[in-house]
Amino acid sequence: MPKNFLTTADWTREQLEDLIASAQRFKSGEDASKPLAGKSIALVFFNPSLRTRASMQVGIYELGGNAVVLEPGGTSWTLEHRAGTVMDGDKTEHVAEFVGVLGRYCAAIGVRTFAALKNWEEERRDPVLSAFAEYADVPIINLESAMHHPCQALADMMTIREKFGEGKKRVLLTWAWHPKPLPMAVPNSFALAAAQMGHDLTIAHPPGYELDDELVREINTHAFDAGSTVRVTDDVNEAFKGAEVVYAKSWGSRRFYGTPEDDIEARAEFRQDWIVDEAKMARTTDDSIFMHCLPVRRNVIVTDRVIDSSSSVVIDEAENRLHAQKAVLKLIAECGLRNAE
Amino acid sequence: MPKNFLTTADWTREQLEDLIASAQRFKSGEDASKPLAGKSIALVFFNPSLRTRASMQVGIYELGGNAVVLEPGGTSWTLEHRAGTVMDGDKTEHVAEFVGVLGRYCAAIGVRTFAALKNWEEERRDPVLSAFAEYADVPIINLESAMHHPCQALADMMTIREKFGEGKKRVLLTWAWHPKPLPMAVPNSFALAAAQMGHDLTIAHPPGYELDDELVREINTHAFDAGSTVRVTDDVNEAFKGAEVVYAKSWGSRRFYGTPEDDIEARAEFRQDWIVDEAKMARTTDDSIFMHCLPVRRNVIVTDRVIDSSSSVVIDEAENRLHAQKAVLKLIAECGLRNAE
Amino acid sequence: MPKNFLTTADWTREQLEDLIASAQRFKSGEDASKPLAGKSIALVFFNPSLRTRASMQVGIYELGGNAVVLEPGGTSWTLEHRAGTVMDGDKTEHVAEFVGVLGRYCAAIGVRTFAALKNWEEERRDPVLSAFAEYADVPIINLESAMHHPCQALADMMTIREKFGEGKKRVLLTWAWHPKPLPMAVPNSFALAAAQMGHDLTIAHPPGYELDDELVREINTHAFDAGSTVRVTDDVNEAFKGAEVVYAKSWGSRRFYGTPEDDIEARAEFRQDWIVDEAKMARTTDDSIFMHCLPVRRNVIVTDRVIDSSSSVVIDEAENRLHAQKAVLKLIAECGLRNAE
Repeated sequence: MPKNFLTTADWTREQLEDLIASAQRFKSGEDASKPLAGKSIALVFFNPSLRTRASMQVGIYELGGNAVVLEPGGTSWTLEHRAGTVMDGDKTEHVAEFVGVLGRYCAAIGVRTFAALKNWEEERRDPVLSAFAEYADVPIINLESAMHHPCQALADMMTIREKFGEGKKRVLLTWAWHPKPLPMAVPNSFALAAAQMGHDLTIAHPPGYELDDELVREINTHAFDAGSTVRVTDDVNEAFKGAEVVYAKSWGSRRFYGTPEDDIEARAEFRQDWIVDEAKMARTTDDSIFMHCLPVRRNVIVTDRVIDSSSSVVIDEAENRLHAQKAVLKLIAECGLRNAE
Repeated sequence: MPKNFLTTADWTREQLEDLIASAQRFKSGEDASKPLAGKSIALVFFNPSLRTRASMQVGIYELGGNAVVLEPGGTSWTLEHRAGTVMDGDKTEHVAEFVGVLGRYCAAIGVRTFAALKNWEEERRDPVLSAFAEYADVPIINLESAMHHPCQALADMMTIREKFGEGKKRVLLTWAWHPKPLPMAVPNSFALAAAQMGHDLTIAHPPGYELDDELVREINTHAFDAGSTVRVTDDVNEAFKGAEVVYAKSWGSRRFYGTPEDDIEARAEFRQDWIVDEAKMARTTDDSIFMHCLPVRRNVIVTDRVIDSSSSVVIDEAENRLHAQKAVLKLIAECGLRNAE
Repeated sequence: MPKNFLTTADWTREQLEDLIASAQRFKSGEDASKPLAGKSIALVFFNPSLRTRASMQVGIYELGGNAVVLEPGGTSWTLEHRAGTVMDGDKTEHVAEFVGVLGRYCAAIGVRTFAALKNWEEERRDPVLSAFAEYADVPIINLESAMHHPCQALADMMTIREKFGEGKKRVLLTWAWHPKPLPMAVPNSFALAAAQMGHDLTIAHPPGYELDDELVREINTHAFDAGSTVRVTDDVNEAFKGAEVVYAKSWGSRRFYGTPEDDIEARAEFRQDWIVDEAKMARTTDDSIFMHCLPVRRNVIVTDRVIDSSSSVVIDEAENRLHAQKAVLKLIAECGLRNAE
């Protein structure tokens, strides 16, 4: 079993299934265990958060533990993650000491560190998250990094399971327009987990909005192993046809990476074509569901009519963050205890 | 029983009396119940807070629960509260999703959302608080909105009861000078609750500092129902005569609303006349008390001699915030449980 | 027994020994008591914090209590600490009310208030911390003030005891270069506590970086009482000879106090000479230890080779913050209970 929860790719389908089953036992109330009693969990937020922060704090409390939230300010408290540096610049502490110390106080460390959207080749390697994992003695939980958001993906897979039961579904990940370029962690992790879970996946986006090449290869490998299919298309109307799960998300183009304001005109043309509206949803199956990780801009990503319809499961999906994360925390606490023996 | 605690006006005098009695049982130690055991309460602060935040966190803990504090930054995390908007501006999430999700994690939501002091006609309708109440499935507790601060008013009424016992008192709400225009939530809620509780109320302020017209009508209606009187005066010295309770508070003028820096000269003339000092307190009864919601600027609103005198009950009043809020939380938890059955 | 924990100088060596012994019982697991059950502790941070905040939150939880963190913003919430002021400037609340109210909600108040590095004569008297202690009815714990960091010093003395057992050690406090002038609280409190505990102390720094004169006299008095020695030197290489404990720390020069950017050139010359490297550590005893309070700039204060060597105890030292603070909190809780009876 992996020590950390950095990406679902480190976990087998069977392990993910076990986590989803555990999450469902928390949701039903069947599991009311307190595996974190007497333990503290550090939650380090380099970026703002509502759902992640609130659901982690509530989940840790419900498991009997104590959440310690740390929010390093952009300028007030900066961490060096590179080895061997002469730290005479603006970084005041090295990740080595930061996580070394936190690991003495806390049983695990959750960390949120978004893409800075400045240097794709550097950020795609998730250097800050990787440094946390390298230097920490305690488990690291990824609360959204530049590349991955595995807690979200686990809640997403749980939501699909909850609505449709077991079995392969036709899942559409569809790009949407947004006034600003957004990170890719959510679409990356959703596509990866959907492939791991054996769903047939369609990824729809305009030309120029391709996901990371290596990640797409990884997605294809997982799909092949699971006996499912992946297709990528820029035909948004075709993409919705027969979909059972519609997962909308905006993300920025790597073509404009590092020059975030330069693609406003480039992306404007896609605005009306790519919004999720009733016309597009009419092409899906009768019992299809609409998903989004939230926060969502209404009438930009999705129309009021769709998000307020009975097919929208966005609030359930957000609720499942709580249960999925409790499952991850429980497993980590139990493994940590087992390792310690 | 109302689902939410938005303003004392939604609650009958009998219900308010029950809350005060419950608060007194918490203060005396007679009630040590833990109605929030296993439950989380979200506290959403759009504005800074000391007493409210600390007293809510302590009260929730003492009731067995878990406080989740969320502080949306002015720019980093902004909420749209209007229905039907195309969200392509600076608002990143709609209140509908925000409270929908929080309601899945938490048993109730407290929210602080001050007046922006920009547009009186809009702000007097408390649009953000109203949107929270409209979209939430769980109870909403007002931790100070543009128009109301009912937790403060409940603690104020408890403090008067604690000092004087039952019965009608002569209560003075008196304006004071302050270098900046301040919101009206505290004077609004104090005057309203004092009228609801049947006290004889004097509201003293310089010309131009009238409270909201509709609110004053509401205050008069409550006073009429309770068999008590309301008078409004700009004669500060006359106002103190025979008062048993002196409640000082500065607030801004609606004449200058939206142009906050333009009334500095207009208000300067009132500075010396309206400070609460020993000369004014000498006109009150021998056992009169001095109240203020805090924070207070010493020697601006009130002199050191008055606030440090034995008639000052400001620290007791602040302490009662804790007990009053525990009473509100307990009632909400019990009603929530009852409704759920 | 002192009511507050403001500086180790208020406590006798025997009392400090008792605190260290208590901390060791927490660390070993022998003491699992919950003296804070049902109690809340306020933690007021005027300045950023990692170790102090996390270790206090975890310690309070492990003692059964509830930590209430308050972070007054630089501009949003400012406290007046001087008596008799007319508060018509930028300060919105007086410490008198601030701590008076917190004392009604919480059993003790921890406060962090760094030196502003503006006016030495004023800041060396620790005016904000002193006002907290003067106005509070509940115990005040110093979480680092302009002059003192007693929780750090207690953890430091515990670490020396843990590594070497009882008895007098040769302890070196050695200055290091840093791109910015830093406060003196840590070196002050370390030197003071080392003298109180009877260690032979060498303080090494370049000319112009003298510690506060009165504090140095106090250190000498404690050393005399404990039968140990103090010497001050600017010969860094000589200073390391035979040291058993090397405690590195940068601090600013009082010559440049209030003009923080003017000493960049003045201090640059000391950069290479004063870094703690393997050559200097080779002059110490074979079993010597390297200490630093963290955060530390690698390859500026200390080389990677030293901080990553087996003689480095910086993570243990940081861990001991947790145990030492639990000992302080336990003692305060028990004394508070005893006084209340």
